[in-house]
Amino acid sequence: MITDGQQARAAIFTTPTDREIHIERVYDAPRERVFAVYTDPTLIPEWWGPRGTTTVVDEMDLRPGGSWRLVIRSRDGSETAFRGTYRELAPPERVVQTFEWEGLPGHVAVEAATFEALGERTKVTTVALFHTTQERDGMLGSGMERGANETYARLDELLERLASS
Amino acid sequence: MITDGQQARAAIFTTPTDREIHIERVYDAPRERVFAVYTDPTLIPEWWGPRGTTTVVDEMDLRPGGSWRLVIRSRDGSETAFRGTYRELAPPERVVQTFEWEGLPGHVAVEAATFEALGERTKVTTVALFHTTQERDGMLGSGMERGANETYARLDELLERLASS
Repeated sequence: MITDGQQARAAIFTTPTDREIHIERVYDAPRERVFAVYTDPTLIPEWWGPRGTTTVVDEMDLRPGGSWRLVIRSRDGSETAFRGTYRELAPPERVVQTFEWEGLPGHVAVEAATFEALGERTKVTTVALFHTTQERDGMLGSGMERGANETYARLDELLERLASS
Repeated sequence: MITDGQQARAAIFTTPTDREIHIERVYDAPRERVFAVYTDPTLIPEWWGPRGTTTVVDEMDLRPGGSWRLVIRSRDGSETAFRGTYRELAPPERVVQTFEWEGLPGHVAVEAATFEALGERTKVTTVALFHTTQERDGMLGSGMERGANETYARLDELLERLASS
């Protein structure tokens, strides 16, 4: 069961430089569990993407240089997709990958997620680096913060279900 | 026929910022011709890549959002490939594309080539923008300047052949 406290939990978004978005989010689960869920293709449809959408894993070749591609289908049947390349995979600490929305192809960010153990909880810090401030601001203006918070809340709920199962 | 003057012509490489490589090169052909050759998949094998290699066009989907992939085969049979996405195509003035070497996947530069008419000659200015200084310096340290100059000299020779045919 999800408590009000968990539902209200928000990630902290900051812009420490003119080309970065920095996101911190804490999960009520140990680091190994959070990392394992985060990188499990069979679990991606359970949490990745805004509420009310369905995500299909087209590709998740989890090795340095491997490709990933996730397709999000909305209730009205429209689809959009995100893709990239894994650069580093260091369980349970760090994932670095490129990130590209197929609606704006050729605009590629680098996303580094770091998993830090806080006892039985885990802080995930994600730093997204863009080529230009304009691309960074385009991402911020796209509703990314709301979509990301929904995704993180869905991950909370999945971690809760896994812990109680 | 290629004169000594043409063979000795070198591109001007500069690093105006800590994440860019800026290259200027003049060709003895009108802008429309240079742009047309530069973006013609059937002519790529005639000039793209260092001397002594063979380039195969795996993909050149010349439209915004389209993919490109070029495979370079060395005399010893080894292969390496480069790929990216076209972002802008504005004949005969400008091509913007991403650029990624498959030997270091997930490290993506943005390459903007601008074609400027100088009477019957053409100046091509290429600006490559990297996410980090480290990636930019890695490219500079890879022998890129020598390889690029060979490619540009091969393009000179092809333009000469086309002009005299």
